Amino acid sequence: MTTRTGPIFTKVALLGVGLIGASMAHAMRRGSLAAHIAGHAHSEATRKRADELGFCHSIHADPKEAVRDADLIVFCTPVGAFAEVAAAIAPALKQGAIVSDVGSVKMAAIRDIGPHVPTGVHFIPGHPIAGTEHSGPDAGFAELFDGRWCILTPPAGTDEGAVTNLAEFWRGLGSRVEIMDAKHHDIVLAITSHVPHLIAYNIVGTASDLEQVTQSEVIKFSAGGFRDFTRIAASDPTMWRDVFLNNREAVLEVLGRFSEDLSRLQRAIRWGEGEMLFDLFTKTRAIRRSIVDAGQDTAASNFGRDTKKR
Amino acid sequence: MTTRTGPIFTKVALLGVGLIGASMAHAMRRGSLAAHIAGHAHSEATRKRADELGFCHSIHADPKEAVRDADLIVFCTPVGAFAEVAAAIAPALKQGAIVSDVGSVKMAAIRDIGPHVPTGVHFIPGHPIAGTEHSGPDAGFAELFDGRWCILTPPAGTDEGAVTNLAEFWRGLGSRVEIMDAKHHDIVLAITSHVPHLIAYNIVGTASDLEQVTQSEVIKFSAGGFRDFTRIAASDPTMWRDVFLNNREAVLEVLGRFSEDLSRLQRAIRWGEGEMLFDLFTKTRAIRRSIVDAGQDTAASNFGRDTKKR
Repeated sequence: MTTRTGPIFTKVALLGVGLIGASMAHAMRRGSLAAHIAGHAHSEATRKRADELGFCHSIHADPKEAVRDADLIVFCTPVGAFAEVAAAIAPALKQGAIVSDVGSVKMAAIRDIGPHVPTGVHFIPGHPIAGTEHSGPDAGFAELFDGRWCILTPPAGTDEGAVTNLAEFWRGLGSRVEIMDAKHHDIVLAITSHVPHLIAYNIVGTASDLEQVTQSEVIKFSAGGFRDFTRIAASDPTMWRDVFLNNREAVLEVLGRFSEDLSRLQRAIRWGEGEMLFDLFTKTRAIRRSIVDAGQDTAASNFGRDTKKR
Repeated sequence: MTTRTGPIFTKVALLGVGLIGASMAHAMRRGSLAAHIAGHAHSEATRKRADELGFCHSIHADPKEAVRDADLIVFCTPVGAFAEVAAAIAPALKQGAIVSDVGSVKMAAIRDIGPHVPTGVHFIPGHPIAGTEHSGPDAGFAELFDGRWCILTPPAGTDEGAVTNLAEFWRGLGSRVEIMDAKHHDIVLAITSHVPHLIAYNIVGTASDLEQVTQSEVIKFSAGGFRDFTRIAASDPTMWRDVFLNNREAVLEVLGRFSEDLSRLQRAIRWGEGEMLFDLFTKTRAIRRSIVDAGQDTAASNFGRDTKKR
C-alpha cells in the first residue's frame, strides 16, 4: 500500500470522534496529513475518552469552536444529527473551506447539511466504505481505510480543485476514491451494505424469538453460519437506525427484490427443485471469487479467524 | 486445547474425503487416533488428489473395500449420496463396528443409512458444527474441529459403550460433544446454519440481478457488509442443495418466521418507527457478545481479517 504523506490541509475538524472519526485522526497522523486535528463530540464521556487517547490536537464541546479556521470539516456523527450540527457550525465556517461527511446516505447529507453551507464554502459529501462492528473512540485505528473505497458525491458545479484536494486527502488516509452521483450511491449502498445489515439484524432477532431452540443452543452451535451474521448485527444501533430512516426508498426497493427472490427459493425447496438451487449456489460462488480477486476480502478460509490455514 | 491422543479405533473408514473427511484424517493423525485410515471417493480425480496428499493409509474406489474390517465408518459424502453408499457397504460391515456420518440433516441420515445397517452394527449419526467455504481434499486441515461442537444423535436403545467411544473419538479430534435428539438437531441447525446459508445465497443472487447496480460496483463496494455474506454463499453447491432438499420442513418453518420478522422491519422502515429499529439493533448486539464469550467466534474486529487491530 503506498499512501501519500505530507500536509494537505492545515486544520481538519472532525465532528464526531467514534470509530470513523478516530480512525481518520489516526490515519491523518500516520500520513502527517494535517497540522492540527480538532475534534468535537456531543457527549462529555466521549470527549474525555478522546482526550485521553490523544488522537486529536484539541477537543471541543462546541462544534463551532472545532470548525473555526478549519480547511476541512468532516461530519462523523450519525446521519440523524447532521441538520442540527450543520446549523450550529454554519456561522463559523471559513471561506474556501471544504465541508464533507462520512455518512452512509448521501441524499440525506445533501438534504440536511447542504442548505446550511454558506456561499464560498465547498460542500462535497463523502462515504468511506469501511468499518467494523465496534464503535466509539477506542475502536479507531489507522489502517481502517487501507485498500477500501471512499465514494465522493460532489453536487453538479462543485469546484474541481476542492474535489481534487479531498480525493487526495482520502488517498492519503489509505483509500481508493470513486466519484459518483448521490442518488446512485444510495441504491448501490442499499444492496452492498444497508439490506445486508437489515437481514443480519433480522435473522439474529428471529433466532432469539424461536420457542423450539434455546438461546444457549443458538450460541453454542453458531459456527454453522449464524455467527457470521452476528458480527454485522453488532454494529452501532444509532448509526443504523438513522441509515434505515434516511435511505428508506432505496432500502425498501432492494428489500422488495430480496423478498421476491427468497420466495422463489422457498418454493424451490418446497417442491424439491434441486437443479434451481444448485445453479444459484454455483453462480454465487463466482461472485465471492471476484471480491477476493478485487482485494476486498481475504482468501483465507473462515476470514482467517479460526486458524492459520489459508 | 487439550486433546486426547492414542488409538481409539484400529481402522477408520472415511466415505468421502472432501473438506470434512480430509480434516478428520489430518486430526486423527495429529492425535494418533487410528492405526489405519481408509478413504473412499466416488470421483477418480478426488481419489488421485487424496492419494497425493497422503492423509489416508489407503484409498478405495469401491466403498466396500474401504469399510472392510473397519471399527468406525463415517459417511462424509453429501447427504444425497447416503442411501446408495449405505446399500453398497452393508454386506461388508464388521460385527460390532460403529457407523456414523457428518451430514447436516440427521433425520435424513436415519432415513437413508439406518435401514441398511445390519444387526450387531451400531448406528450413531453425528454432525460436527465446523466448516469453511472451501471444499475438496485440499481444503482439509487438522484444526478444523478444535473448540467446535460435534452433535451426536443416537437413536433410542443405542449401545452406550459405542456412544462413549464415538464421543471420545470426536474429543480426540478437538471437538466438544453434545448428545441430542435427531429431530431437534434439524430445527436447531435450520436456524443456526441452514437458513443463514439460504439468505446469504439469496442476497448474493439478488445483488447480481439488480439492473441499477453493476456487478463491478457490488464487488468494489462489498466491504460495507455484503462481502461477509459471499463467504457463506461460496460453500459447496452439491452439499447445500442436499441440505435444503432433505431438511425441508424445518427450513421452511424457520424461513417463515424470518420472513414474518422481516416484513415487520420493512413496515417499521416505511413508517419511520425508529425506536423499534433501535431496540432490535441493541438486542442483537448482546447475542454477538455471548457468542464471543462462548469461544465460538473471535473478538477481533472484522473477524481479524483486515488488520491486526483487536
